[in-house]
Amino acid sequence: MMAEPRTSSIEGKLSEEFAVPSHVDEVKEKMAAFARHHAEAGRKVVLITSGGTKVPLESRTVRFLDNFSSGRRGASSAEYFLDSGYAVIFLHRHRSLYPYVRMFLTVNMLDVLQFRGAEGAAANSGDVVINQQLLPNIAKVLKRYNEVKDGTLLLPIEFNTLSEYLHLLKAAAQALSSIGSKAMFYLAAAVSDFYIPASEMPEHKIQSSNGPLQLSMKMVPKILSPLVKDWAPQAFVTSFKLETDSSILIDKARRALDTYRHQAVVANVLDSRRGYVVVVTPETQAELILTDEDVKNEVEIEDRIVSNLTSAHTKFITQQEG
Amino acid sequence: MMAEPRTSSIEGKLSEEFAVPSHVDEVKEKMAAFARHHAEAGRKVVLITSGGTKVPLESRTVRFLDNFSSGRRGASSAEYFLDSGYAVIFLHRHRSLYPYVRMFLTVNMLDVLQFRGAEGAAANSGDVVINQQLLPNIAKVLKRYNEVKDGTLLLPIEFNTLSEYLHLLKAAAQALSSIGSKAMFYLAAAVSDFYIPASEMPEHKIQSSNGPLQLSMKMVPKILSPLVKDWAPQAFVTSFKLETDSSILIDKARRALDTYRHQAVVANVLDSRRGYVVVVTPETQAELILTDEDVKNEVEIEDRIVSNLTSAHTKFITQQEG
Repeated sequence: MMAEPRTSSIEGKLSEEFAVPSHVDEVKEKMAAFARHHAEAGRKVVLITSGGTKVPLESRTVRFLDNFSSGRRGASSAEYFLDSGYAVIFLHRHRSLYPYVRMFLTVNMLDVLQFRGAEGAAANSGDVVINQQLLPNIAKVLKRYNEVKDGTLLLPIEFNTLSEYLHLLKAAAQALSSIGSKAMFYLAAAVSDFYIPASEMPEHKIQSSNGPLQLSMKMVPKILSPLVKDWAPQAFVTSFKLETDSSILIDKARRALDTYRHQAVVANVLDSRRGYVVVVTPETQAELILTDEDVKNEVEIEDRIVSNLTSAHTKFITQQEG
Repeated sequence: MMAEPRTSSIEGKLSEEFAVPSHVDEVKEKMAAFARHHAEAGRKVVLITSGGTKVPLESRTVRFLDNFSSGRRGASSAEYFLDSGYAVIFLHRHRSLYPYVRMFLTVNMLDVLQFRGAEGAAANSGDVVINQQLLPNIAKVLKRYNEVKDGTLLLPIEFNTLSEYLHLLKAAAQALSSIGSKAMFYLAAAVSDFYIPASEMPEHKIQSSNGPLQLSMKMVPKILSPLVKDWAPQAFVTSFKLETDSSILIDKARRALDTYRHQAVVANVLDSRRGYVVVVTPETQAELILTDEDVKNEVEIEDRIVSNLTSAHTKFITQQEG
C-alpha cells in the first residue's frame, strides 16, 4: 500500500506556489449560496470539473503546457445530472464545451442563420432566423436550456490556468461542505501533473536563439487528498483516470482509491473513451459499454456513467444517515 | 550579419521529423485552383495563418505545448483584406477565432435565441429567432458573411499540430507560386519555436509517478527561409514578431528581414498588441497606433495594418512588373 500524502504540506504548497485568483472568495460565496439554496429545496448538488488546465512556461505567458480535453465529457454529463434532478456547479476551462451549446459548436453559427423579412421587405432585412432544417434539434435544446436557466439549476465557473483550477476547486469543496453527503464531486477535468513554480519561471518569452529548450517541471500536489480528508469529508467523490495504455488502467484506479479513500474512479482509455469506461469503487467494478445499437440511437456513455453514479450516491447518502 | 540558414537541410528535416498530413495534396490542389481562379478575375490573394500550434509531448497525445493565441488578429485581418478586394486563404488553428463569427464568440448562442410562434401558437414552438437587441450587429454581419460566401472569396483550411501547420504552409506557398507577385503571405500564426521529434517521443502518457518531468525540445526549422527563397520567391511576404520585452523588438524584426530577405515584419509587444504595432520593411519603419478616439469608435488595429500592407503590396507588384 502507498504512503498517504501529507495533507498539510499540500495546503502549504498550494498557497505558496500557485497564484491565488483575485475573485476566489466571491466565487466561493456564490457557490455556497447556490448549494444551500438547492439543498434546502431537496436537491443534490454535483460539482463537475471539465476541460484541460493551462500551465504557463513564462510569467508573461506566450507558451504553455496543456492537456488534451475538449470538455465533452463534463459538458454532456452536466446535462444528464440536470435530467436526474441535480443542481450543477460547472467548473470548466474557458471556451471548453458547454452544456447544451456543445451540440452546435461544430457548426458555424452564420451558416445556419437566414433572413426572414415581412411580406415585400428586402431579402436581407427583418428577422434573423435559425434554419431548422440545418439544425433540427435547436427548438428542443433551447427549450431545455431555458428550463435549466429559469430554475437557476446550473452555475458556471470558469478557469484557465492550473492555479485557478486548484484554488477554485478548493473553494468549491469548502463551499459544498455545508451540505454534507448531498454533495457529489465529479472531477472530469484533465489536470496537468506537472508545473513550473512561479519562482523558477522566466519573466519574458523564452528566446529560441538561445538554442534547444530544457524544461524541468515539478509535480503538481495531489489535491484529491485534502479534498477528501479535510475540505469535504462527507461528500461523494468521483475522480477520473485516463490512460493510453489499457494494461495499467484498473490497477491505477484501485491504487487511487486505496490512497485517497474516496468513493469512485471512472477509468478510461484515450482511444475508446466515448464507448467504454469502468466505474471502480472499493467493493465493485462496473464495465459500461455502448453497443452498436446504442451508438445508432445516439446514446452517450455519459448517460450510463451518471446513472451508475447517481444510484451509488443515493445509497451512500442512506448509509451516511443510517 | 547572420549566416543564412541552409534551405536544403530545412526541407529535409521537414519531411523526416514532422508527420505529413494525409490530405496535404488534396488541400494543395484546392488552394492552387482558388488562387488561379481569383488571379484570373483580377484579384490579389492573401494567405493568412492564424492561431497557435499544438506540439505533442506523447505520440498518443494527452499533453502538448501550445502558444498563446486566440486567433483574433488573423480573423479580423481576413475581414479587412476581403474589404480591400483580396481573396483570402485562411490557414487557422482548429477552433481559433474565425472571420465574422468572431464577433459572437463571447456570447452563448442559446442566450440570444428566442421562440417566435405564429399567433396563438405555444410560446416555445415555431421559429427560433435571434434577439437583435442582444446582438445588434447580427444582420449587418450576416449580410457581409453571405456576400463573401456567395463570392467564394474565403477558403478556410484548418490545422491543429505544428506538423500540420508546417506542411500545409509549404503546400500553400507552392500552390500560390503560380500567381507570382499577386500573392501575399501574412504569417500571423503563433508558431512554436520548439518541438520533440517523433523518434524521441514516448508512445504512452508520461506517468507522474516517475517523478518530475525533464523535457528536452529541439528547435523548429525556420520555414520562412525556404518559403521566401524556393517555394514562393515572387510573393510579398509579411512575418510577425511578438515579444514581451519591447527593448529587443525592433532589433529582432530587422534581423529577421536581414536573414530571410522578405518584405515586411509586423512587430508587436504582448501587452500592447491591440493598440500598437510597428511595420518594419528594409527601407521603412511605420508605427501604427490607435488613439483613444479610435478605440471609442471601435477602430481595430488590423484595419491599419492591412491598409499599410496592401499599399506596400501594390507598389511591390508595380516594381516587379516594371
